[in-house]
Amino acid sequence: MTGRFPAVGDGSGLERGDRFHKEEIQLALRNRGIPLEGLRYPITPTGMHYLLTHFDIPAVDIANWSLTVGGLVSTPMTLQLDEIKKRPVRTIAPTMECAGNGRALMSPRPISQPWMLEAVSTAEWTGASLRELLAEAGLSIEAVEILFTGLDRGIQGDELQYYQRSLSLSEANREEILLAYEMNGLPLQPQHGYPLRLVVPGWYGMTSVKWLDRIEAIDKPFDGYQMTKSYRYSQNADDQGEQVTLMKVRSLMVPPGLPDFLTRIRVVKAGQIRLVGRAWAGLSDVARVKVSTNGGSAWSDASLGERPSPFAWREWWFDWQAIPGEHVLCVRATDTDGNTQPLSQPLNFLGMGNNAVQRLFVTVE
Amino acid sequence: MTGRFPAVGDGSGLERGDRFHKEEIQLALRNRGIPLEGLRYPITPTGMHYLLTHFDIPAVDIANWSLTVGGLVSTPMTLQLDEIKKRPVRTIAPTMECAGNGRALMSPRPISQPWMLEAVSTAEWTGASLRELLAEAGLSIEAVEILFTGLDRGIQGDELQYYQRSLSLSEANREEILLAYEMNGLPLQPQHGYPLRLVVPGWYGMTSVKWLDRIEAIDKPFDGYQMTKSYRYSQNADDQGEQVTLMKVRSLMVPPGLPDFLTRIRVVKAGQIRLVGRAWAGLSDVARVKVSTNGGSAWSDASLGERPSPFAWREWWFDWQAIPGEHVLCVRATDTDGNTQPLSQPLNFLGMGNNAVQRLFVTVE
Repeated sequence: MTGRFPAVGDGSGLERGDRFHKEEIQLALRNRGIPLEGLRYPITPTGMHYLLTHFDIPAVDIANWSLTVGGLVSTPMTLQLDEIKKRPVRTIAPTMECAGNGRALMSPRPISQPWMLEAVSTAEWTGASLRELLAEAGLSIEAVEILFTGLDRGIQGDELQYYQRSLSLSEANREEILLAYEMNGLPLQPQHGYPLRLVVPGWYGMTSVKWLDRIEAIDKPFDGYQMTKSYRYSQNADDQGEQVTLMKVRSLMVPPGLPDFLTRIRVVKAGQIRLVGRAWAGLSDVARVKVSTNGGSAWSDASLGERPSPFAWREWWFDWQAIPGEHVLCVRATDTDGNTQPLSQPLNFLGMGNNAVQRLFVTVE
Repeated sequence: MTGRFPAVGDGSGLERGDRFHKEEIQLALRNRGIPLEGLRYPITPTGMHYLLTHFDIPAVDIANWSLTVGGLVSTPMTLQLDEIKKRPVRTIAPTMECAGNGRALMSPRPISQPWMLEAVSTAEWTGASLRELLAEAGLSIEAVEILFTGLDRGIQGDELQYYQRSLSLSEANREEILLAYEMNGLPLQPQHGYPLRLVVPGWYGMTSVKWLDRIEAIDKPFDGYQMTKSYRYSQNADDQGEQVTLMKVRSLMVPPGLPDFLTRIRVVKAGQIRLVGRAWAGLSDVARVKVSTNGGSAWSDASLGERPSPFAWREWWFDWQAIPGEHVLCVRATDTDGNTQPLSQPLNFLGMGNNAVQRLFVTVE
């Protein structure tokens, strides 16, 4: 790459060493994950919800803000927030995960936001139906996609851009998609997309465009940066690969016992201990969660709880008789379509969709 | 060190290279900073407030929670949250900064939470007066310190501990100290200390103990880990050094222009641009803020705004005629006691209190 910004690492986009770059730390300090003990809450408290901001959080003056609905529609609209709030109110609490969650556990490691396991959360979103708004606008027969543009702007891959993502007409017309103005019962906080964001249940989080500025019906698939150059399952810089879409089946565990501050290694007291966590599966559902307490040599079924909402994670639990020694705890989910989390994840060039099983080292004493 | 957990780096506690360890990334992903554009808000939105959790966020069942006030007092008390809320209600919005803010910009770098600039925020806290509660409990003549114990528990420096900090009687009796049960007008979120936390204006954040379990009057200075082994200005592992106490004078700038996603390097459009930020100074106040747009060769006075609250930061602004080229923007505050931010920070062993001037690289075009 011969970009205008200095290359990070050797310029290949991948890092083969086990040390992290300053640029990765900078991103980790801005883009926070859920502390894994936060998985104990079925609905993630707002300030614990994971957050990935591509550029800067925009400053929105609500007096000057409106949503434009245009492009190939019969009735273009410019809507103030109050007008959007007058529409029928919908609430849903889908699980949302960053497509890059697990990137930093790949080897070699794609250089970007260095998520390990923590980029997933479940909030209750309230807003208006996208489908109903599109019906009101009247989509033209030529329309094939809906393009969503946020107010966040910056440079990625040497390209100056507003953050933009599109959905096909059939995807955009799913009934559960919201134009959300509340999160957990309160107006959106600035970092979560104030005053209005898209919420697309089942999809990785990049689709849920924040700080919505306009919605346009367009006559061909959108080829912007965030569709064609980012969020791809590709093998190298020249491979376009496949589009990243739905969240894959995945499960995580609340780390049991007590942590060491620096290493985060856990110490667990011997005896019966209930291991708990959450599992989710995009538009599908979780069929089965299995737990291993010996690094994957043997697996046992965990119990599965209810979902707090359609498209949300399920709680799982498993009672473990912890005996003194070193243990590697693993959890592995299977969805209702028969997909199971892999034991390890082959590299993809952008570090997308790593749903390999979590491995957690604990000392029982 | 011959600890029970594996050493990070060469075991010296310092890192001389410019790459970061996995353990530092893990901490950065848990302990989030304020995105610097968040400095635009006089009161930080709850979910943007910086956060440092030593161990795990405890799960508190409010039905079983109470605050114990004991030790050398004439009237020991056990208080439910409702009883604390019945006391006169105080609200204050002090600026709070982590004592380790700036640690990762030191060279060599102490290995711990790798803050760069972002561990500072200002929230509005509401609660009861600590001084009034202590008066009600009736301090014994033998009492010399007040010890605060949180419910968060883990291992640090090979020592199993609850998080504990103390204040001298004169410090604990300052009228602005709160037992806070609300943040920004709502019950504390779990990660900010639910149901009750100490808020000590002017001091670095380690003093504002979260998840309060008990308050005890004691007859000698508390010598626990977080007082004698951590939060010290020390020169090496064997040096006890001085206690870390009040926040030093400091200023930060909202990064102007647009960011590059990966490197966070900024591109600014030529012409007049208003540089803005915040400055604060512990129990003191900010007297002056100076800005340099050429890496510190020349400094100009910035304008200073009001404080949103006693003990809070002040906004500053400076109009800059940006001409094309590479620039290093710097901001430097002086407090009313005559202390000025240093241009660079000599190492201390634990990476505490680094208030060196921010240096921000921008390209104007």
